[in-house]
Amino acid sequence: MIKVGIAGASGYTGLELIRLLVNHPEVELTVLTSETYKGKSVADVFPSLNGIIDIELQPFDSETLKACDVVFLALPHTTAMDKLPQLIESDCKVIDLSADYRLQDADAYPEWYSLTHTHPELLSKIVYGLPELHREKIKGAQAVANPGCYPTSVILALAPLMKTDWVNLDSIISDSKSGVSGAGRKPSMASQFSEANEGVSPYGLAGHRHTPEMEQELSGLAGNPIKISFSPHLIPMSRGMLSTVYIDLKKKLSDDDLIEHYQKFYNDEFFVRVLSKDRFANTHSVAGSNFCDIGIKVDTRVDRLVITSALDNLVKGASGQAIQNMNIMLGFEEKISLQSPAIFP
Amino acid sequence: MIKVGIAGASGYTGLELIRLLVNHPEVELTVLTSETYKGKSVADVFPSLNGIIDIELQPFDSETLKACDVVFLALPHTTAMDKLPQLIESDCKVIDLSADYRLQDADAYPEWYSLTHTHPELLSKIVYGLPELHREKIKGAQAVANPGCYPTSVILALAPLMKTDWVNLDSIISDSKSGVSGAGRKPSMASQFSEANEGVSPYGLAGHRHTPEMEQELSGLAGNPIKISFSPHLIPMSRGMLSTVYIDLKKKLSDDDLIEHYQKFYNDEFFVRVLSKDRFANTHSVAGSNFCDIGIKVDTRVDRLVITSALDNLVKGASGQAIQNMNIMLGFEEKISLQSPAIFP
Amino acid sequence: MIKVGIAGASGYTGLELIRLLVNHPEVELTVLTSETYKGKSVADVFPSLNGIIDIELQPFDSETLKACDVVFLALPHTTAMDKLPQLIESDCKVIDLSADYRLQDADAYPEWYSLTHTHPELLSKIVYGLPELHREKIKGAQAVANPGCYPTSVILALAPLMKTDWVNLDSIISDSKSGVSGAGRKPSMASQFSEANEGVSPYGLAGHRHTPEMEQELSGLAGNPIKISFSPHLIPMSRGMLSTVYIDLKKKLSDDDLIEHYQKFYNDEFFVRVLSKDRFANTHSVAGSNFCDIGIKVDTRVDRLVITSALDNLVKGASGQAIQNMNIMLGFEEKISLQSPAIFP
Amino acid sequence: MIKVGIAGASGYTGLELIRLLVNHPEVELTVLTSETYKGKSVADVFPSLNGIIDIELQPFDSETLKACDVVFLALPHTTAMDKLPQLIESDCKVIDLSADYRLQDADAYPEWYSLTHTHPELLSKIVYGLPELHREKIKGAQAVANPGCYPTSVILALAPLMKTDWVNLDSIISDSKSGVSGAGRKPSMASQFSEANEGVSPYGLAGHRHTPEMEQELSGLAGNPIKISFSPHLIPMSRGMLSTVYIDLKKKLSDDDLIEHYQKFYNDEFFVRVLSKDRFANTHSVAGSNFCDIGIKVDTRVDRLVITSALDNLVKGASGQAIQNMNIMLGFEEKISLQSPAIFP
Repeated sequence: MIKVGIAGASGYTGLELIRLLVNHPEVELTVLTSETYKGKSVADVFPSLNGIIDIELQPFDSETLKACDVVFLALPHTTAMDKLPQLIESDCKVIDLSADYRLQDADAYPEWYSLTHTHPELLSKIVYGLPELHREKIKGAQAVANPGCYPTSVILALAPLMKTDWVNLDSIISDSKSGVSGAGRKPSMASQFSEANEGVSPYGLAGHRHTPEMEQELSGLAGNPIKISFSPHLIPMSRGMLSTVYIDLKKKLSDDDLIEHYQKFYNDEFFVRVLSKDRFANTHSVAGSNFCDIGIKVDTRVDRLVITSALDNLVKGASGQAIQNMNIMLGFEEKISLQSPAIFP
Repeated sequence: MIKVGIAGASGYTGLELIRLLVNHPEVELTVLTSETYKGKSVADVFPSLNGIIDIELQPFDSETLKACDVVFLALPHTTAMDKLPQLIESDCKVIDLSADYRLQDADAYPEWYSLTHTHPELLSKIVYGLPELHREKIKGAQAVANPGCYPTSVILALAPLMKTDWVNLDSIISDSKSGVSGAGRKPSMASQFSEANEGVSPYGLAGHRHTPEMEQELSGLAGNPIKISFSPHLIPMSRGMLSTVYIDLKKKLSDDDLIEHYQKFYNDEFFVRVLSKDRFANTHSVAGSNFCDIGIKVDTRVDRLVITSALDNLVKGASGQAIQNMNIMLGFEEKISLQSPAIFP
Repeated sequence: MIKVGIAGASGYTGLELIRLLVNHPEVELTVLTSETYKGKSVADVFPSLNGIIDIELQPFDSETLKACDVVFLALPHTTAMDKLPQLIESDCKVIDLSADYRLQDADAYPEWYSLTHTHPELLSKIVYGLPELHREKIKGAQAVANPGCYPTSVILALAPLMKTDWVNLDSIISDSKSGVSGAGRKPSMASQFSEANEGVSPYGLAGHRHTPEMEQELSGLAGNPIKISFSPHLIPMSRGMLSTVYIDLKKKLSDDDLIEHYQKFYNDEFFVRVLSKDRFANTHSVAGSNFCDIGIKVDTRVDRLVITSALDNLVKGASGQAIQNMNIMLGFEEKISLQSPAIFP
Repeated sequence: MIKVGIAGASGYTGLELIRLLVNHPEVELTVLTSETYKGKSVADVFPSLNGIIDIELQPFDSETLKACDVVFLALPHTTAMDKLPQLIESDCKVIDLSADYRLQDADAYPEWYSLTHTHPELLSKIVYGLPELHREKIKGAQAVANPGCYPTSVILALAPLMKTDWVNLDSIISDSKSGVSGAGRKPSMASQFSEANEGVSPYGLAGHRHTPEMEQELSGLAGNPIKISFSPHLIPMSRGMLSTVYIDLKKKLSDDDLIEHYQKFYNDEFFVRVLSKDRFANTHSVAGSNFCDIGIKVDTRVDRLVITSALDNLVKGASGQAIQNMNIMLGFEEKISLQSPAIFP
């Protein structure tokens, strides 16, 4: 049994880590932190955990957390930036769910996050934790930057094309739709029920912070700098994320050609499912699970490829992928505690 | 007072016509038809109408309807095709909410609707009822084909650009999101609550029937054949539609340039609202109303324009626009019974 | 045209007042206040109002508001308590949507609201604005306390029984369900989308503040003190309220007997609709409208009456009823601007 | 490994059985039947199962199913009535999720289900499968009638009181709220998204078929015939059920008294969680899990007890409880494959 700590256990990704880890046979949850609810039992904050786990939430303390074998940082963006370095002074492995160490170019932080990174020297040492692309590096990493939900859905949708000469890499657009839990648990006007229900709201068009993360990984695959259009939308559902990705084809290719190519590319990947012909990815098929479903459709009238990519923003888009990374880093079977199918309806 | 009939009064667009017309000062509803509920009072079918209107639903009968000054056909697609010709033998004006007379090219019906049009000779005589583009023709028309909800949102989003040389007309993509009422009132698996709730479902990618309708109007404006990519998605809300439209810019243009151009283009249009800078269209602002809101954003990093266009699929996307057409055809003030702001939340 | 001011115009009841009043032929909106958004146009706060009304929000100032003929106080509870007295020093008529002047017994405030009323001398002078019960008093009132949404639904459900000897007045239970907009527009954890969506949450059982308001009115009708059980529940919808009310019958009565009695009782009331046999009240039939629907069902196996009562919490439960009161106070036709049927779906 | 068959695998309870059983270490799913989708892979019908299970759906055939060790009948009501007797001729154990064998009194079927039971002789032999009440009988049973979702929530809420003399047994009311999946997967008007969304609908008041099932079990516990009022409501959510149960107290009892009594009563029951003081049951805490949460509140002003009882209608209200029964019948640890906490949000 390994000792696991979760910093930020009273947010949605924190709760999702707990939900998935309580039945992990190799894991013992030993430290849960929360500034807001310190002193309370986690089951008082989340009554779903009654009878299942009863640990007192405590304030963040790096010394306490260092005694864990693995620590998940499920903290707000910018909060993790100075806490991660404290933890990795010890042998403790760290999986950071924030954006603080995802970008390897320190200059991107002032541009996209309006801040100066306080530990630029660490950026190149911390592995971008998308297992389907970087599994070998993750195996040996002490710290992993867990990808964002939008980037996971978009990068997995496009990765198989990046080294081909089939597509126009200047033409990439991702029109993405997210459930409201992606905004986190802190009350805000935009995520009030009556503001989000019964409507669809675009936001952050032409400037969302997840853009450079996608471009970093796609550029790395292609071997050339790539710029994309990324348009997030808020959808009235609690969980789930769909990216509809558009890219112009440079040659005539059929659905079958592309599906075969994608299936080969993801042949060994349990968590990426390439759908059969004329099937489109749908969040219902992945909600609650660690799967990312990818659908392929060629619009032959205009020589454009339309890729649909669906995942659960809290699982494959956050806590599930973090556990997948933990399993890889510690040499466990990668699927442990992540094998449940989606919950539907 | 003019006499108005509604064929198909027990569907959602039928009900929406009633809701908007009961307070129209120039209109008397005289005939309501429904095959499913014939013999019942419309207020028994829709208890929201209790105390407001009490008319018995009767089966469709063209002789009865001809006695009306105006008939709205709120019938399923293909059902209106043979009924409209019967009605226009009289002086009765007809507004057809189905797709049966929207396409002027008879050959498009076999290709997109898998049927042969039974009255191809009428196609050129029936006006495509988008008032912002064809108001003068609508004024003199006996029959109008009321536009689809998706086409209304996409055509209004793009119309101001079609005669410019600012954009690459081969690059148009509309990623559209619709509430479930767009699928009509007949029970189906896809529109069951548990199938549609808490998920987002793309459908009809690269082949949806509303595509040729958009292309017909955009081509007409541009003076050249235009093909677009159109991707509809089902969203868990009852009403509302958002189209996020992408088009490549051929020259450097700012948000301000484009907003000014759009505002001039729609300067005299009450129902089209061009939003100010950095505002995106949102279905909450139009639900229950006849407005179409349009937001403009240039993605300067990639020289691409992102247009957001929001409307209520049952109002500006169907019954409200139909009443707008009626008002124009009969010489009433165009806004009558359509001036309510959206209902929010 | 009368001059109307709204204090608290950036909340949901404030917006709903605006939505309903912009098309009121006798009303000119002249003053809108908001502390949070002062200096902004109301159409910037609520884009649904673009092109319809453009008034700058200003901070609350009693002198400015006194220049209005009517002022609606759509302020948080306790905020109106000291503002109402300032306004009624002038000739200005006031309709207070808060709970601050609803209870006529000053002692009830410490018990249920944990505060001492600052103007107990006014409590007996301000009329409880439920038109179906107190129309004559409202006509002559300078100030009206607009009823709460829950009390409106429960009192209208029970009023016809209070003077009969058919029921056991000790047995009243109201199990009520409300949409989330009832909690107001201020962000809170409980009204976050992800906390309220896909779940039903009882709250305030055996102690909700609306209880004494119901008991005051029911006791007044019965001529005896009445105590009830009131159980509110939060339901994942934006608008709408349903109360399912239980009361034991002391004699054998049929559905028909009771429906006839209710229909007589509400015979002259446009906004209360008593449903026919075997119909239950449903929020869909009233959403967006000022109607309250009441369904009657006798559970003959146990001699218990089950009354269902549905209204829109923001209309008949708040702003619509407030306008109904204004129409009465100013001698306008009571239905003006309140005649639209519900919006469905 | 035991061989398990599911008859009716393409409905919601069928899918839920599969979701929970695929990770059951003692179970091999061998036969899945569906009349509608026969010949298709279950993963084509439910894409959530892609990569997890790939079994061809076949028509119901009792010979094939008899080869299983356990068969779940997840069939529509009345369909199971003649199929269960065929199966229990063999050694096969049967868990019937329909209502066909829940009532032990054959006369109740004509009264409540408008049909004559075809196998009245079996009614006394088939155990009512509520483990918290009938665990010992379930252990030895060949066939179990799995309780309905509403009855499970109501019976568990009231069971601890039935043998006390604290309450007035004539005063029981259950006001229950259910998510839409409870209506099954067959398309119907009432469960269309646009008909169920954004509204709350009472139905079946004073006559719902689950009433005699509750009364049978409550009467059995009390040793006297008990009649209750039961009012179901449809709520706009996919899963979840809340019963708010009212019962008059005959003596002064505090929240603490009652909570202590309930906690003792359910002390050994993992799946029933009695909440601490001033906590109310909430469907969010149980969705996706096999828990039933029970909250206790005394309304001291009126000497009435308000019990809130929450469960997931598809898990503890159907498929989860069915698996709990299977585990008991086969001597497995009762919690296997049912230990996951709720999924929230």
